[in-house]
Amino acid sequence: MAAPLLIRGGTCVNEDRAFRADVFCENGTIAAVGENLSVPEGTETIDATGKYVLPGGIDTHTHMQLPFMGTQAADDFYAGTRAALAGGTTMILDFVLPNKGESLLSAYEKWRGWADPKVCCDYSFHVGVTWWSDEVGKEMEVLCRDKGVNSFKLFMAYKDVYMVNDKEMYHAFCKIKELKALAQVHAENGDVIAEKSKEMNDLGITGPEGHEMCRPEEVEGEATNRAIVLANQVNCPLYVVHVMSRCAADVICAARRRGCVVFGEPIAASLGVDGSHYWHKCWRHAAGYVMGPPLRPDTTTPGYLMDLLANGDLQLTGTDNCTFNGNQKALGKDDFRKIPNGVNGVEDRMSVVWEKGVHSGKMDACRFVSVTSTTAAKIFNMYPQKGVIRVGSDADLVVWDGEATRVISSKTHHHAVDFNIFEGLECHGVPLVTITRGKIAYNKGKLDVVRGWGRFIPRSVDAPFVYSRVRQRDTIPRYVKVDREPYTGPVIQLD
Amino acid sequence: MAAPLLIRGGTCVNEDRAFRADVFCENGTIAAVGENLSVPEGTETIDATGKYVLPGGIDTHTHMQLPFMGTQAADDFYAGTRAALAGGTTMILDFVLPNKGESLLSAYEKWRGWADPKVCCDYSFHVGVTWWSDEVGKEMEVLCRDKGVNSFKLFMAYKDVYMVNDKEMYHAFCKIKELKALAQVHAENGDVIAEKSKEMNDLGITGPEGHEMCRPEEVEGEATNRAIVLANQVNCPLYVVHVMSRCAADVICAARRRGCVVFGEPIAASLGVDGSHYWHKCWRHAAGYVMGPPLRPDTTTPGYLMDLLANGDLQLTGTDNCTFNGNQKALGKDDFRKIPNGVNGVEDRMSVVWEKGVHSGKMDACRFVSVTSTTAAKIFNMYPQKGVIRVGSDADLVVWDGEATRVISSKTHHHAVDFNIFEGLECHGVPLVTITRGKIAYNKGKLDVVRGWGRFIPRSVDAPFVYSRVRQRDTIPRYVKVDREPYTGPVIQLD
Amino acid sequence: MAAPLLIRGGTCVNEDRAFRADVFCENGTIAAVGENLSVPEGTETIDATGKYVLPGGIDTHTHMQLPFMGTQAADDFYAGTRAALAGGTTMILDFVLPNKGESLLSAYEKWRGWADPKVCCDYSFHVGVTWWSDEVGKEMEVLCRDKGVNSFKLFMAYKDVYMVNDKEMYHAFCKIKELKALAQVHAENGDVIAEKSKEMNDLGITGPEGHEMCRPEEVEGEATNRAIVLANQVNCPLYVVHVMSRCAADVICAARRRGCVVFGEPIAASLGVDGSHYWHKCWRHAAGYVMGPPLRPDTTTPGYLMDLLANGDLQLTGTDNCTFNGNQKALGKDDFRKIPNGVNGVEDRMSVVWEKGVHSGKMDACRFVSVTSTTAAKIFNMYPQKGVIRVGSDADLVVWDGEATRVISSKTHHHAVDFNIFEGLECHGVPLVTITRGKIAYNKGKLDVVRGWGRFIPRSVDAPFVYSRVRQRDTIPRYVKVDREPYTGPVIQLD
Amino acid sequence: MAAPLLIRGGTCVNEDRAFRADVFCENGTIAAVGENLSVPEGTETIDATGKYVLPGGIDTHTHMQLPFMGTQAADDFYAGTRAALAGGTTMILDFVLPNKGESLLSAYEKWRGWADPKVCCDYSFHVGVTWWSDEVGKEMEVLCRDKGVNSFKLFMAYKDVYMVNDKEMYHAFCKIKELKALAQVHAENGDVIAEKSKEMNDLGITGPEGHEMCRPEEVEGEATNRAIVLANQVNCPLYVVHVMSRCAADVICAARRRGCVVFGEPIAASLGVDGSHYWHKCWRHAAGYVMGPPLRPDTTTPGYLMDLLANGDLQLTGTDNCTFNGNQKALGKDDFRKIPNGVNGVEDRMSVVWEKGVHSGKMDACRFVSVTSTTAAKIFNMYPQKGVIRVGSDADLVVWDGEATRVISSKTHHHAVDFNIFEGLECHGVPLVTITRGKIAYNKGKLDVVRGWGRFIPRSVDAPFVYSRVRQRDTIPRYVKVDREPYTGPVIQLD
Repeated sequence: MAAPLLIRGGTCVNEDRAFRADVFCENGTIAAVGENLSVPEGTETIDATGKYVLPGGIDTHTHMQLPFMGTQAADDFYAGTRAALAGGTTMILDFVLPNKGESLLSAYEKWRGWADPKVCCDYSFHVGVTWWSDEVGKEMEVLCRDKGVNSFKLFMAYKDVYMVNDKEMYHAFCKIKELKALAQVHAENGDVIAEKSKEMNDLGITGPEGHEMCRPEEVEGEATNRAIVLANQVNCPLYVVHVMSRCAADVICAARRRGCVVFGEPIAASLGVDGSHYWHKCWRHAAGYVMGPPLRPDTTTPGYLMDLLANGDLQLTGTDNCTFNGNQKALGKDDFRKIPNGVNGVEDRMSVVWEKGVHSGKMDACRFVSVTSTTAAKIFNMYPQKGVIRVGSDADLVVWDGEATRVISSKTHHHAVDFNIFEGLECHGVPLVTITRGKIAYNKGKLDVVRGWGRFIPRSVDAPFVYSRVRQRDTIPRYVKVDREPYTGPVIQLD
Repeated sequence: MAAPLLIRGGTCVNEDRAFRADVFCENGTIAAVGENLSVPEGTETIDATGKYVLPGGIDTHTHMQLPFMGTQAADDFYAGTRAALAGGTTMILDFVLPNKGESLLSAYEKWRGWADPKVCCDYSFHVGVTWWSDEVGKEMEVLCRDKGVNSFKLFMAYKDVYMVNDKEMYHAFCKIKELKALAQVHAENGDVIAEKSKEMNDLGITGPEGHEMCRPEEVEGEATNRAIVLANQVNCPLYVVHVMSRCAADVICAARRRGCVVFGEPIAASLGVDGSHYWHKCWRHAAGYVMGPPLRPDTTTPGYLMDLLANGDLQLTGTDNCTFNGNQKALGKDDFRKIPNGVNGVEDRMSVVWEKGVHSGKMDACRFVSVTSTTAAKIFNMYPQKGVIRVGSDADLVVWDGEATRVISSKTHHHAVDFNIFEGLECHGVPLVTITRGKIAYNKGKLDVVRGWGRFIPRSVDAPFVYSRVRQRDTIPRYVKVDREPYTGPVIQLD
Repeated sequence: MAAPLLIRGGTCVNEDRAFRADVFCENGTIAAVGENLSVPEGTETIDATGKYVLPGGIDTHTHMQLPFMGTQAADDFYAGTRAALAGGTTMILDFVLPNKGESLLSAYEKWRGWADPKVCCDYSFHVGVTWWSDEVGKEMEVLCRDKGVNSFKLFMAYKDVYMVNDKEMYHAFCKIKELKALAQVHAENGDVIAEKSKEMNDLGITGPEGHEMCRPEEVEGEATNRAIVLANQVNCPLYVVHVMSRCAADVICAARRRGCVVFGEPIAASLGVDGSHYWHKCWRHAAGYVMGPPLRPDTTTPGYLMDLLANGDLQLTGTDNCTFNGNQKALGKDDFRKIPNGVNGVEDRMSVVWEKGVHSGKMDACRFVSVTSTTAAKIFNMYPQKGVIRVGSDADLVVWDGEATRVISSKTHHHAVDFNIFEGLECHGVPLVTITRGKIAYNKGKLDVVRGWGRFIPRSVDAPFVYSRVRQRDTIPRYVKVDREPYTGPVIQLD
Repeated sequence: MAAPLLIRGGTCVNEDRAFRADVFCENGTIAAVGENLSVPEGTETIDATGKYVLPGGIDTHTHMQLPFMGTQAADDFYAGTRAALAGGTTMILDFVLPNKGESLLSAYEKWRGWADPKVCCDYSFHVGVTWWSDEVGKEMEVLCRDKGVNSFKLFMAYKDVYMVNDKEMYHAFCKIKELKALAQVHAENGDVIAEKSKEMNDLGITGPEGHEMCRPEEVEGEATNRAIVLANQVNCPLYVVHVMSRCAADVICAARRRGCVVFGEPIAASLGVDGSHYWHKCWRHAAGYVMGPPLRPDTTTPGYLMDLLANGDLQLTGTDNCTFNGNQKALGKDDFRKIPNGVNGVEDRMSVVWEKGVHSGKMDACRFVSVTSTTAAKIFNMYPQKGVIRVGSDADLVVWDGEATRVISSKTHHHAVDFNIFEGLECHGVPLVTITRGKIAYNKGKLDVVRGWGRFIPRSVDAPFVYSRVRQRDTIPRYVKVDREPYTGPVIQLD
C-alpha cells in the first residue's frame, strides 16, 4: 500500500473541464480534491504548479509477451507495463488469444499466470474468440460471470490461425449480445489477404512493401463494414480495434451516424506515423513498421484520423503494442509473410496524441483525457473507478507538462525492444510523474516500479455507456408480423 | 432564499454517468451529493425513489415578449419562464435584438428592464448585431467586459430588419473573435427569400404553405455553409441557431469533421414535428407552425436531426420559443408574409427530446442531460455553475419520470398562448418536480413561482469549451510569407 | 426475312441527340436514315409523325422458364419475348444457371435448346458460375471463345444453391479478367440471410414481410461493397445486377468515383414500386412482390435510384423478369422461404422508366435511350449492331408516343402470369409499333410474333466500352518492388 | 475554301465508339466516312494509319487580348487561335466582358471587331453580365435573338470590377432562364477575398503565395454552392467555369446527384498542375501561375478532378487561357494584388488531358473526345455541327498519336507569351495534323494558318442537351396552392 500523497497546485483535467485543485491520495484511491487541501503529516507532496494533472492513461489494446508467428513479443508484462508507466499510462487491456480448438478458460488462466506476477500497473483482459462451438459459447458465459471479462475479440483475418468466417462471427455476436458483453473485431478480409499474398510472392515482391500491397486499405474498409452490418443484425454493440485507414474510419462514422452502436479505436501508430516507411530502403527499418492491418501509404491518414478523434467520430485510442526485435523481424527477411507483425506504442501513445491532437489545436486537454482514458473506462465498464480525477476513484494519475517537449528514441525508451516507430519525433506533452494506485512509479525520468503491483481489474457486463441504448432498443419490437387472412387459393402440385 | 431541501433516493444523471444518490440543497446551491445523506432538521424532503434527478434544462434560445412584425410575443418573461419551469427547464437564454441603428447597450438595458422583474428562473442574454459600425464594435466590447454577454447573433435573413450582408458579417466575426466571444447566426439567404416571397405572391400563393416554399431547405443550407466559411476565415467559433433541415445539419457535420469550431442547435420544433402542417386545410392550424426558418416537408427530418444529436454531430437543443396567439397570427390571414413568425417550445422541449431521443433508444439519459443542459452550460461558459449535479453547483434540478407519459395540449400547457405545435403528442418523460436555485417551483402539476426570482447570469468571455482550441490554433502561424529575392526583371509601362 | 419498311416523319432519338428523319429498313437492318427518303415500291410505311422513333429496348436481365425452387418461371422464352415486344423491348439477355457441379457447357446447350425454338426477338445469354473448379475455368474459356458468351454471374446469396464464397469469387474474378469478360454479381450476404431467415421463423413471422426483414438493405449494400473490393483487387470489371436499395447504389457511386470499373443495373421493379407491398394485408398481393433482393420499405428508393440513373451514377436498366403464378407463389403460403422469388418487368420496363424518368423531367429522351438500350449494347459488346438508329445497325426499333398514357394491368398485359407488380400505374410513354430486325411484331395493340424468329446474338470478349481503360491500366505496373540491400543482421533461432 | 481532303486509315473516335474509317472532307464539311473511300482526283491525302482521328478540340473558355488590370492579355485572337490549332483545338469560346455600366451590345460589337479579322479557327462568344438593370436584360434578349449568343457569365468575385451581388445574380438568372440561355458563373466569394487581401497586406505577405492564401478553396466552394442554390430557385441551368478545387467539384457533384441541371468545367491548369508553385522561391515563376480562382496547394487536386471528369461527375474542359508576359506579371512584383491574373492552356489542353486522363487509364479515348469536344458542342448548342466525326459535320479534325510523347515548353510553344505553366511536362498524346473546316492548319510541327479564316459560330438558345429536362420540369407545377376556407376568427388590432 502506498503512503499518503498530495499533488499540489496543478490544473486537474477531466473529460468535462479543467480546474485548479490539489489532489490527495490515500490507500490507493483519491481521498480529496480541492484547493489548498490540508493533509496529514508525513504526506508526500508533489508540486504540480503550472502543470496538468490527468487521469492515468488507459491503453485499450496491448499484446505483451504474445506467442506469435513462432516467436514471442519482446515486451513481456513486466517490461510492457513498466514502459506504460514511463509514458503516463496506468492501465492496459491485453488479450487472451486461444489457439483454434483451445479452451478459452484455460487460455485465460494461462495468460493470468503470465501477467499477474509481472504487471507493474493495473490491467485487464479481453478474450479472443478464435473458433466457434457451443462449448465456446458456454465458456464465454463463465468468463463473463466469474472471470471479469466483458469483451471478446474476433478476427476476420489471420486465416487458419485466428480467423472466423461470417457465420461463426454471426453466432459469436449473438452470444455476446446475449451476455451483454462487447464484441471487438480485427477487420480485414483474410481471404483476400491470403490470395494477394500469393500474388505478391508470384511477382517476386518479398519485402515489407508487399505486406501493405497485399492488404490495401479497402480490404480493411470492406471487413469493417461487414462486421458492422453483421453486428447490427443482432443489435450487438461493436468495437473496431486498430482503425488504420481513412476508409475504415469513414465506414465507422457513417454507421454511427445512422445509429449503430459502434466504437472506433485508432492507435498511436496510425495517429503518429504512416505507411511510407514500408518503402524505406533499409529492410530492418521497413520491417520495423510491419503490423496488421498495416499503416497506410496515404500520408494524410494520421491527420485525418486525428480530426475524427477530435470531433468524436472516433472515440478512444490504444496501441496494439506488440514488439519484436530486429532478429525476430528478421525471420521474414526473405519473405514479408514471415515478419512478425507488431509495433510499439504503449509508452509513447500519450505524448503522440498530445502532440498531434492537442498541440496542433485539434482537441483540447479535456478531449485528450477523454480519448486516452475516460472513454476507455466507460466502454469497458470501469468508470468512475478509472478514467477520472474524483474522490473515490483509483489514484491512477499523471502530472503532465503540456509545454515541454521530448524526442522519442529507441535509445531512451523503456521498452525491451531495439526499435521505435516514432524515432526522432519531437512531442510536446511530457509525463513528469506517473502514479499507480497512489504510488509514484515514475518521477522525472526515474522509474520505481514493482513486479506484480498491478491488479487484474474485473469488469462486469452490461456497461451503461454501451448497453443503455441497446437495452432500450430491445424494448421496441424490431420485427412485427402482419396479421392476415390465410391464403385459400390454389397451390401448384410439385412432382 | 429557499429552505434546505433533500431529494432522496433518486438516480442522479450527469453527462458522464448515472448513479444512485441523495442530493442536498442549501442556500440555492447543491451542498451534498451522496448515498443516505444526513441533513439538518427542518429540511424539506422529496422522495425520488425510482426516478431520475437531472440538472435543470437550459433553453438556449427564447424570445419572450419580443416586439416583432408589429405585435409582441404572447409569452412574456413571466409566462415564459413559468412554462419553462413546468417543463423541467430552469434557465433560459433570450435575445436582446436592437433595431438597425439602435444602440446595443441601450437595447440591452431595455431588455433587462423587461426581464428582471418578471423572470421566475435564472436567465441570460445573447445580443443581436443587426447592423454594423465601429460604434457597434465598441458597444460589443462593453457588453463583454461589463454586462455579462459573451454571445452575439447575426441574421442572414429578415432583410431590411435584422439582416447583415457578408461584409458586415465578416467584420462582426472579426470583432467577436477579438473579444473571445461566440458568434451565432440565423442562417437563411435573405435575398433569395425576398425574391421568392414576391414570386409566391405573384403566383397567388398567400397561405402558410407559401412561407415554406419561398425559403426551401437549400436556402438554409446555403447560408449555413456561407456563415461557416466566413467564420473559419477569421478563426471565429460559430454557433448555428435553430437547425431546421437535413441540409443545414449536413453542412455543420461536414465542417466539424474538417475541424471547424462550429456548433449546431436543433430545436424542439425541428426535433418533434415537421413542415407538412403548412399544407393543413385549416388556416389557423397551418399558421400556428409558421416560423423562420420553417419546419420541413421532408418528414424524415426530425428523426434525422435526432440521430445526429444522439451521435454528437449536433450538440444541444433550444426552442426559439416565440409565441403568438391566433389573433396575432391572423395578421397574415391574407398574406403569409404578415404572419408573425414563431412557435412554442420552452415548456415541452425536455419531454419531446426524451420521447424522440431516449425512449426511442437513440440516446441514453446521460446524453439527454448533455444535449438539454450540460453542453449549453459549457458553450456559454456557465459550467459547472449550471448543467451538472455536483457540490457547489446551482441547485437547478428536475425530478424526472422516464416511464410515465403525458399528452401535450394547449388546453393544459402553461404558456400564455392558445396553440401548441405538439398538440396530441404523447411523450414518455415527465417532469415531476422542478427546483430553481433550491426552491421548488413545480411539484406534480402545481406551479409555485415567484416573479423576479430569477437572476441574470453574467457570462464571461473565453469559454474554455469553445476557446481552448481556438487559442491554441492562434499560436500556430496560419499564413507564412515566402522569402524571395526581389524581382529585378523588366516591368511593362502602363499608359 | 422481313419486307422493306419505312418509318416516316418521326423524331429519331439516339443517345447523343434527337433529330427528325425517316428510317428505311431492309434485310433486317437499317438501310437509310434521313429526311424525305425515297424508297422502293412495295415498301411498307409506318407514319411516325409527331412520335419518337427509338432503338428497341434491351432488357439486360431476364429469367424465362427458369427452373427454380421446385417449379418453373411462368413466362417461357415465347411468352416472355412476346411480352417484351409488346412493351418496346427487342432483345433480352437471359441467364444460363448451372446447378452446383453441373457442366457450364452442357447447361448452356440445354438453355439454348429451350430458347432457340421459342424466342420472338433476338437474345443472348449470360452464364452463371455457381461453383468453382479448374474445370469450370476451362469451360468459361470455351464459352468465351466458341459460344458467344462474355459475361458471367456470381451469386453471393442463395446459400447451398448458387452461392459462392469469397475465395471462389476471387478465383472466378481472376479468370474472368484473364478472359476479358465481364463479372456480374447478385450481391447479398447469403450467410446473414440464412441466419435471419431462421430468426424470422423462430419469431413466427412466416409471411412475405419476413422475406424483406431477413435481408434488409444493408445486407445488400455489404455484399455490393465486398464484391467491388474483391473485383478491384484483380482489376476485373464488375456489373452489379438488380440494384434494389439506396445503400447498394451509394456503394456503387462511391466506387465509380474513385475509379473502379463497375456498373449498376437498377430494374423496372426497383424504379417503379417499393417494398411497402410486403406489408399488404392480402397474402397473394404481398407474395406477388417477393423477389431477391427484395424491394425496399423506404418509399424514397425508386425516386432516388432514378435520380442516380438520370445523372449517370447508375448506368442502365434490366428487369430480373422471372414470373410465377399465384398457385406457384402459394408454395410459400405458410413459409415465405418457399415463395418462388420473382416478378415481372420485361413488358413494362420501357413505360415505367419513361414515366418515372422522362415524364418527371429527371432525364431527357436521349438519356432514356441510353439507359434502356445503348449502354446495354456497349457494355455487352453489341454496339453499334444494337442500341442505335444508324445505317447498318439491326432494325430493332420502336415507334413511341411520349405523351400518350396507358394503365398497366395483369388483365391486359401479355405475360403468361396472373399478376403484375405495376397494377394500376398510369404511364406516360406508350409503344405504338415494335420492329424486330425489320419486321413489325407489335402494332397499335396487336402482336404479330413468330416463334424462333429471334437469333442468339454472340458477344465477343474485350468490349471496348469496358476494357479500354482496364487494358490501359494493365500497362502501368500496379505493384513495384523496392530494391534493397539484403538484410545481414542477426536472425533469432526458433526451436 | 479548302481543297478536298482524305484522311486515310485512321481510327476515328467519337463519343460513342472508336472505329476504323477514312474521312473525306469537301467544302469545309465531312462528306464521307467509311472504309476504303474512293475520292475525286486531286484530293489531298493524309495517312493516319495507326493513329486516331478525333473531332477537333473545343476550348470552352479563353480570354484572348483581354484588357485586364491595366494591361492586355498577350495572346490576341491571332496568336491564341494559332496556338489552339497547333495543339489540336479547332474552336474557342471567348468572352465579351463589358465594364460596369457599358452596353452589352456595344461591347459585343467591339469584341467582334477584335476577333473577326484575326481568328484562325472558328470561334464564338459568351457575354459577361457584369452589372444589372432592365436595360441589360433587354440587351440580353437582342444578343440571343440576333447575335448568336446563348450563354452569359456572372462574376461572384472581382469586387467593384465585374462582381454582382446575390440579388443581381438572381435577377440575371431569371432573365437567362426566360431566354432559354445558359448561366455561367465565376464562383468565388468576392467580399471575403477583398477582406482577406487586406489581411495579407497587413501581414506583410505581398508575394504570389498571398494570392492563394486570401482565396482558399472553401471560398470557391462556398460561392459554387450559393450559385447553384440560387439558379435552382428559378430552375435556371448553370455552368460553373474553371472548377479549381476538390471542394467546388464536390459541391457540383452533389447538386447533380439531387437533380440540379449544372455543369462543371475543370481546366487544363487545374487538371495538370497544382498550387504549390505559388510557394516557389523564384518570384517570376510563382507569379506565372497566378490566376483566379487559384490553383490549390492540395497536390491531390488534379488527380481528383480527373477522376470526376472520367466518371461523368464533371463534364468538359476549358482553359481560361489568358496569358501575360513576365513584364506584365511584374506589375505586381511588390503586391500580388496587382499581378495580372491568367495562365496559358489553349495549346496544351488536349495533350494534358490525354496524359493525365487517357494514358493513366482513367478514361478511354471516347470519353476524351467527349470532354474535350462533344459535350462542349452539346451544351453550347453546336452539335452535331461540331464535336463529332459524321457526314455533314464541320471538318474540324485532328490526327492524333496516342503513343507519341512531347515535352511542353515555352521555348517551343506557339503562344505569344514567355512562360508556360506546364513547362517540362512530358505528355503522351500528340497532335499530328489539325484541320479546320477541311483545311490543314497544322501538320507535323508546321503551322499554316490564315488570319480571319475562322468564322463566328452563332449559337441559338434552347439547347436540347440543356433544356429538354428544364422544359419538361416546367410543365409540372412547382408550387401548388392549398385551397382553404378563409380564416374568420379574430384579428388583433395594431396601433
